[in-house]
This record gives sequence, C-alpha cells and structure tokens, in this order.
Amino acid sequence: MQKSYPLSGLRVLDLSRVLAGPYCTMVLADLGAEVIKIEVPVVGDDSRSFGPFVGEESAYFMSLNRNKQSVVLNLKSSEGKDILRQMVRQADILVENFRPGTMDRLGLGYGELAAINPRLIYAAISGFGYTGPYSQKPAYDVVVQGMGGIMSITGSPDGEPTRVGASIGDINAALFGAIGVLAAVEQRHKTGLGQMVDVAMLDSQVAILENAIARYEVSGEIPGRIGNRHPSISPFSSVNASDGQLIIAIGNDGLWQKFCTIVKRPDLASDERFVTNKLRTENWALLKPELAAVFAIHPVTYWLDLLQSQGIPCGPINTIDKVLADPQVKARHMIEESVHPVAGRISMAGSPIKLSGAPDTVVRDPAPILGQHTEETLKSLLDLTDGDIRKLKDKGVI
Amino acid sequence: MQKSYPLSGLRVLDLSRVLAGPYCTMVLADLGAEVIKIEVPVVGDDSRSFGPFVGEESAYFMSLNRNKQSVVLNLKSSEGKDILRQMVRQADILVENFRPGTMDRLGLGYGELAAINPRLIYAAISGFGYTGPYSQKPAYDVVVQGMGGIMSITGSPDGEPTRVGASIGDINAALFGAIGVLAAVEQRHKTGLGQMVDVAMLDSQVAILENAIARYEVSGEIPGRIGNRHPSISPFSSVNASDGQLIIAIGNDGLWQKFCTIVKRPDLASDERFVTNKLRTENWALLKPELAAVFAIHPVTYWLDLLQSQGIPCGPINTIDKVLADPQVKARHMIEESVHPVAGRISMAGSPIKLSGAPDTVVRDPAPILGQHTEETLKSLLDLTDGDIRKLKDKGVI
Repeated sequence: MQKSYPLSGLRVLDLSRVLAGPYCTMVLADLGAEVIKIEVPVVGDDSRSFGPFVGEESAYFMSLNRNKQSVVLNLKSSEGKDILRQMVRQADILVENFRPGTMDRLGLGYGELAAINPRLIYAAISGFGYTGPYSQKPAYDVVVQGMGGIMSITGSPDGEPTRVGASIGDINAALFGAIGVLAAVEQRHKTGLGQMVDVAMLDSQVAILENAIARYEVSGEIPGRIGNRHPSISPFSSVNASDGQLIIAIGNDGLWQKFCTIVKRPDLASDERFVTNKLRTENWALLKPELAAVFAIHPVTYWLDLLQSQGIPCGPINTIDKVLADPQVKARHMIEESVHPVAGRISMAGSPIKLSGAPDTVVRDPAPILGQHTEETLKSLLDLTDGDIRKLKDKGVI
Repeated sequence: MQKSYPLSGLRVLDLSRVLAGPYCTMVLADLGAEVIKIEVPVVGDDSRSFGPFVGEESAYFMSLNRNKQSVVLNLKSSEGKDILRQMVRQADILVENFRPGTMDRLGLGYGELAAINPRLIYAAISGFGYTGPYSQKPAYDVVVQGMGGIMSITGSPDGEPTRVGASIGDINAALFGAIGVLAAVEQRHKTGLGQMVDVAMLDSQVAILENAIARYEVSGEIPGRIGNRHPSISPFSSVNASDGQLIIAIGNDGLWQKFCTIVKRPDLASDERFVTNKLRTENWALLKPELAAVFAIHPVTYWLDLLQSQGIPCGPINTIDKVLADPQVKARHMIEESVHPVAGRISMAGSPIKLSGAPDTVVRDPAPILGQHTEETLKSLLDLTDGDIRKLKDKGVI
C-alpha cells in the first residue's frame, strides 16, 4: 500500500505565535494537515525575531514552522477580518494562542466564526484558559512551570526549585491541544459540528504531575525535590563512574539480584536492608554509598557496555551534540534536514509519531518566508485577482 | 446541544502496564473511548504494587486507570490468546508497551492481529521503538531523560544534570502515542484500514528539546544548564524576594520599560546595557544583581500583587499542596475525585483538554479492581456462558 500522511485533506488556519500554538500546528502539519499560518504584515510571528539566527532567519522559527504556508493579513482592518472570515468558511480547524478575549475583541471569536462555519474546530491555547479567575492574566512558560508545581519537585534536595530546561509549559499544552483537535475531528464525523478546544498551559502542567499528586493526597506530605532519584523505585538514578555520570534504572527485585551478580557484589544481593524495592527506597541513604563505591572504579563506557550486555536498564547522560549523533536517534529519523531558500540546510527534530501507513520522515517543506504564500493562497481560496491583491497591498491589509 | 464525549464508540484493548501506555489510554478514556484493560491474572498491572497505598489499593494505579475496565487474561495460554484474538475482531485500537518483539513471540504481533482485523489501529509505546539498534534494549523514564538530552540542560550551571521531577520520559511518549492513534483513526475514515503506531520514549524526548537543537546547530556550542533562566529571553527566571522566590517573565522590551516604571527603577529602563532583550540576555550577569536588589526588600505576595495588577507576567513557585488549592486549578476542574469501592475518595488530576461539546469533568468511573469486568466483558463481547467462564477460571486463563 502506498504511504500517505493521515491528516491530508484537513485545512488548518494557524493564527498562533511563538511556541505553544506553533508546536501544536507543527504536529498537525507533520501528520499531513495543510497549515496556513496567518501572520501580521511586516513583522510576522514574534519568534521570527528570536535567536539563534542563520543570516537573518531565525533557526528557532524555522524549527517550529516547517511544512506550513505563510499568509500575511492585518486582522485589525475590516478587509483583513473579511478575508479571514472567507478563509474560515473553507477551513476545518483554527488554532490561536492569544490571551482569551483577544479574538472576541477583533470580532473573530469562536461564536462569530462558528456562525460562519459550524463545522469549524476552534482550538485556543492560552496560559490559564478561557475560564476561571486567572483567565486574563499573561503567562509564559516559566510562569506556569512555577505555578504548576513541576519546579518544586525538580532539582536536588539542598538546591532550589528548578525550571525544566525545555519549555514543557508550552509544549505539553501544544500536545494536549493537538489531541483535543483530533478528538473534535472524530466527533465531527458523528455530529457534523465543530467545537471549541480550550487548553491552558497551567492545566497541562497539573496533568503531568503524575505520582506527586497521589503521594500528597495519600500521605499529606508535600513532595519535595529528590534530585535524580525516583520517589518509589531504587536504584533509579544517576551514579558517578570514574569519569562521569550514567543512569541506572533497576525497576524490580529480579533486576536487582541480577545487577548485584554482574557487579560482583553478592553481599548487596543478600543484604536484608536492600532485598526489596521498598527497602531499597527506604534505605537509599545507606545504599547510595555502596553504589558509589561500585561505580567509582571504572569509566562510564565500561559500565554501559557491561550492564547493557546483561539487559540492565541503563544509559549515558547525553549532551545535545551526543543526542544528535546517537545511532538510534539517527535510525529513527529523529533529526531531519530542511533546505531553506535563504538560510540553507537546517537540522531539526523530526516527529516521534511513526506510522506504518505514513513515511517516517515528515519534513516536506522548509519554514516559509513571511508572506511567501499570501498571493497564491488568496487567489486559489478566495478567487482574488491580481488587481484585488494589489489594492490589498496598497492598503496594508496584506 | 447535549454534551458528549468525543471518542465514544471507539473500543480500546489496553495491554499496557505502569505509566506510558496507561497514560495514553487514560487520555483516550477521558475523551470517552471504551478502554478494556487486559491484565495478567492474580497480579495485574505492575503498578498495582506501586506505592503510595490507600489500604491495599495503589493510589498510583488508581490515578492512571480511572474510566477503564479490567479484564484478566493469561496471554501465554492458547485459550487466552484465542480470547484476545476474538476481542481484537471487535476492537478499534490496541495499545501495548511491551519491549518490541514480545507480542510477536506471543503470536499476537501487529501482523497477526491485522490479519484478523485489518481496521485495527495497533499502538506500541516502547523505550526505543520497533526499529534501530537499541530497539531491544530496556528503558525506563530516567534512562531516556538521560539519553534524550533534557537532563543535560536542566539544573544550575554549577550543578549536575537534573532529572525532571515528573516522568516526562513516559508521559510525553503517551501524548505522542495518543496523537498517533487519533491520526490513524482519521486516516481509517478515508482508507478503511488501521495501521501500526510506533512511538519511542527516546524519540519523544528528542522532539521536545526545542530551541536547544537550533542553538547547537547554529552555534556549534553545546547547550548547558542555565538554571531557571531562559536561553534567549531576559528577565525570564526566578528571583528572590525577602521571604522566598517568585517567577517573572518579561518577554519583550515594552514589558521591560513598564516593569522598570512599576518597580520605580527608571535608571534600569534607560540603562543602555539593558535596553533590548538581546542586551539583557547578553548582560544577564550585570542585570541579575540589580534585580536581586529590587526584589530583596519585599515579600513574594507584595511583588505578585503589584506585578499582576499591572499585567507583568509573573507567578509563585507552588509546591504541590498549593497547586491543588489554587483557585484557577479548581475553577478549571483540574483536580477531580473518584470514589473507589475499596479505597474510597481519591483526588487526581483531571483532563486539560476542555471541549465545548463535552463535560469539563472526565472522571466517570474509579479505577477497576483487578478483573472486575472479566465476566461481563467476556459474556457480552464473546457470548461466553457461565459454564465457559468457570472452565476458563479453573484453567487459570482468567
């Protein structure tokens, strides 16, 4: 069977900027949706001015906006609003990440647009969502990482609350947003109607707290920072070899016995303080120095080779250069190239969603230059003429 | 219009255990899919034995398995395999998170099951995926957090690589898995055929590295740990008030000018070293002590009240208890209760996907007791009789 992208045929109007919205529409575009990015004339998406740059092109922007088309449109002008409304008639999905209320003030809120196209799925990704007391407050990634609790449980016990080094405040909201959009697409097959998908960055942080909530609910103790350990599995952490750190993850008692044999420490295997996962976790302060003594005498590669050959879950702590060079990462096409007409070759992360019916590589087109597709899109979708286009340009609408 | 869950009518066979798979099927169940969890007789999902416990029930398990049904089935017995195959005939989706090859060895791999039901969408979530040199290696969350690079960019510059305090190695794979499943559902509307969705935890970590890849690609410099700062936006970090920390996120030059006025430091606003975001980032070492002096003289609540009232993005660093008590989190129904027949009332995170056509609350049923739905499911789906059930029990198949 010929491979094809699963979302081909779905048209997305993307009014979003910077990260959360564009990441959501990138996922949809990677899966084959037609994503038309609507940008403010002259400046475009704010992130076009975010470094690092290749020449004058933002590598940040390019890595998030591959496979999309760029149409410039001034949504504050009546002509611009009218053009958007005409495009909405022919769209399946609209994604925006303005502060709630912004689209309503433009006369382009979900209510107005649903009246034009009841099949429209309108996805709004915002800091705090369209409801609740903080709805109108501004938010950025680090704000919701702080408010959502993840910083309070990330870092070492004697250190400070720690921001996750990637913007998971934005990215998780983007992923939940994409799931919401696709669930709404499925519901539309049954009802014939679109709906609004309202995803908040703060909510998305709460949703990934995982066992921290359960631990607090059951014990009443506020989960703290425990460094690289797992709260209830041991050993499951970084350890120091003679020349650096590696990760070991011994998830059950059988693996523990096997591990002790491999590292030639039968005394640890039979030590009653460490015989079950529960005891190893409770007695971690005692186990830690024993493991330190084990690992200190050989380098990282020695331990990885030995443990991996015996099926003990372990791995290196890779820096970004090592990640990009990793044979598995390469084999899975997780680093793809695009050839940008101005910036040239650029590498970026591929898609982790590997479908047997679709190609493993997803980067088909480089990120668009600002307004690259304005004319062709308006002509093809709205039947505008060269004269119409010229007038709109003269008025600064496009 | 009456509200309804968007994925109702889709039946999911869930063979997954612990976190990545169960989180994926939780997302699908929250959206209304019928999720039948197939568990090993007697012991069930490994995470039923993970603390913390309420009585004998795992709060960890309960928080991830609400809205699902539990059927016990011994997949190593020929009768168990046969029952699974009969269930596959009536399923839309199967989710598993075994190591690649496990299902094939059971005679239940994607090829075999697709032959029985070509419409089946088969989602496999694994550490490294079904292809590539590491495919057969075992992995846990902390292993892929280490290998995938996120640990190398999380933490303070003078500290160690840091594990993210929630298991985002599992959870992000779960989210990409859910997106892949729903994309395959959409494609099935067009082709009439299912497909295999192969999502790796390592790939999913690479996919969220965001600007770290772009920075390395452009500069050749390996991104390091920069604490709670943002690599290219300043100030965008934690700051120390007189009684604790808060987050400020001043994303553009206009906000910076406004901020300086509000905190009564016009000298900073006009300081040429700090006048653009680029300069503030380059001169962060100089700006940091200036901000420290500003914030040190008042407590956290003073600053939050002042800055929030003026529209400056900021927020507290909440511990888990504060997250659960937050008015916005409550207003968004992000903490929901279930009433478990044995454990009683349990709070857990709700769904961040708020759909105008569906209820905001998603927890309909508590997590199932092991095998709670075995009889009714086998009777209703497979037309088994009481006698059949008794025989299967006697043989240890169910």
